[in-house]
Amino acid sequence: MATALSLWNDTPVRQAIVDYVAAVTDRTSPNFVPEVDRIATFDNDGTLWCEKPMYIQLSHGLRGIGRMAAAKPEVRDRQPFKAVYEKDMGWLGQVAADYAKGDPRGFITVVGGMAEVFEGITVAAFEADALEFLNDAQDARFKVPYKQLTYKPMVELVHYLQEHGFAAWLTSAGGRDFMRAVCEEVYNIPRSMTIGTSVAYKYAEDDKGVAQLMRTNEIEQPIDDGPGKPPHIARAIARRPIMAAGNSDGDIQMLTYAQGHEGATLELLVHHDDAAREYEYDAGAEKALQLASSHGWLVVSMKNDWKTVF
Amino acid sequence: MATALSLWNDTPVRQAIVDYVAAVTDRTSPNFVPEVDRIATFDNDGTLWCEKPMYIQLSHGLRGIGRMAAAKPEVRDRQPFKAVYEKDMGWLGQVAADYAKGDPRGFITVVGGMAEVFEGITVAAFEADALEFLNDAQDARFKVPYKQLTYKPMVELVHYLQEHGFAAWLTSAGGRDFMRAVCEEVYNIPRSMTIGTSVAYKYAEDDKGVAQLMRTNEIEQPIDDGPGKPPHIARAIARRPIMAAGNSDGDIQMLTYAQGHEGATLELLVHHDDAAREYEYDAGAEKALQLASSHGWLVVSMKNDWKTVF
Repeated sequence: MATALSLWNDTPVRQAIVDYVAAVTDRTSPNFVPEVDRIATFDNDGTLWCEKPMYIQLSHGLRGIGRMAAAKPEVRDRQPFKAVYEKDMGWLGQVAADYAKGDPRGFITVVGGMAEVFEGITVAAFEADALEFLNDAQDARFKVPYKQLTYKPMVELVHYLQEHGFAAWLTSAGGRDFMRAVCEEVYNIPRSMTIGTSVAYKYAEDDKGVAQLMRTNEIEQPIDDGPGKPPHIARAIARRPIMAAGNSDGDIQMLTYAQGHEGATLELLVHHDDAAREYEYDAGAEKALQLASSHGWLVVSMKNDWKTVF
Repeated sequence: MATALSLWNDTPVRQAIVDYVAAVTDRTSPNFVPEVDRIATFDNDGTLWCEKPMYIQLSHGLRGIGRMAAAKPEVRDRQPFKAVYEKDMGWLGQVAADYAKGDPRGFITVVGGMAEVFEGITVAAFEADALEFLNDAQDARFKVPYKQLTYKPMVELVHYLQEHGFAAWLTSAGGRDFMRAVCEEVYNIPRSMTIGTSVAYKYAEDDKGVAQLMRTNEIEQPIDDGPGKPPHIARAIARRPIMAAGNSDGDIQMLTYAQGHEGATLELLVHHDDAAREYEYDAGAEKALQLASSHGWLVVSMKNDWKTVF
């Protein structure tokens, strides 16, 4: 094995991670954990890949909303189709500003529009559209396809854990099926270990009698964020994680849930403090950063702990 | 490896299974399937273990309903608590008879009572209660603990598939968490690969700040039966199975979904034709048996194809 976590600077944070993994994998350690219980859960947006200037999935959704508005004049008189069709940046900016302040109504309108765009197509067709977008569409600042906006030190951490007998799960507040388009390629996380928010599926048989699963526009509750994250994790994994990584207030309950495991646990909070290489913001993570201090969660400084970002 | 499927008689059914597994695991075969796509899904009640004279989980639920009725007089004036408390076999028998005829209203009342009994306890506490029941309570006819009522040839088939690189998933129309109490012990199927119907979970923190997941009385939709089975499978597995096994009309869509996989697939339907060693019934499987004939599904005769049942 190459040097552990070679993309991380030699800091106390890197050392704490290495020490933790050493302890839980050492049979002679009082903190040894058998493989079956070595469960690590990772938030996605802002933890494993970039979430600014907007969620990558939102860019994909807005593209779909724009296409639908172009094709169907009858939707242009209502949001979010109207704003996207008219390139009304004021409305879209207000949605983002309201969301950051804790008012999700505009955001829910946008998400509802996204669900509507992809309603009634097969799950496979949705995924093909997401994959094409992630392969081809480029981020405006970094000039690379979106799927390259993963944080390489975090991907290295996922692989490091896997090499040490951990099962690493992706648990995204965003769309599960959007991530399933690339989770194996970009993270080496299996599709079945990628969970997240989703619309409900509907069973159908096509005109040849072949069973298909169609997307509905009904978003399953709870969404995989905040207090909804542990229920999603328990439903899919059925074991309490011993390690979890997030970056925002939406990850607090997941980190608390992992910390409730008997024995040694590790909670990571990725801190966006690197304006030069990525972005610098605490908005939406204020409470998590406070709790990190009181609960002993490890705050990862992108600026100081990582040799590289992308 | 010992003789393949040693608990099966040397019949065309056994041979068809062995031939199928040989074909999809042989790199030189035109029907070769890489390991990642070797997904097999198994229904539980009536497919992997006994479902008569009533669902095992129903026995567990009725015990809980009886306990609650004994402890809380205020519930005794409504169903299903009234019937259980008064040992009103007429009401309970009518529920079963109506259900078999396609009227699930009484059954839904019973299931609602079960959800109410276990509402507000932790997921772990529910599972401990289920485990205690499955370990200790005995089936009246076979005089063994319920967890011993697995069909040994089917368990052998699960292991045989696992030895050949298949991922075997349990997908139960009944309660997912009831099966998670014993799935690893009795089937060697991991908890995370055991899916099924469930109540929703609610996140909470106890008085020490430790995160817990509590059961609600809200049954998540769809239930994992009939047209709800493929959505559950796709949500959890995210790959279409190449093999599926069921025993009733509630498995038709799962079998059809597997058959829709490109390439060679295998669909099994366990036929309860063995009154001497188990039970003999077609009720609730009439349509599936018809489709087996027209769709080429393999009908497994408990009587003829199995050397032993339990």
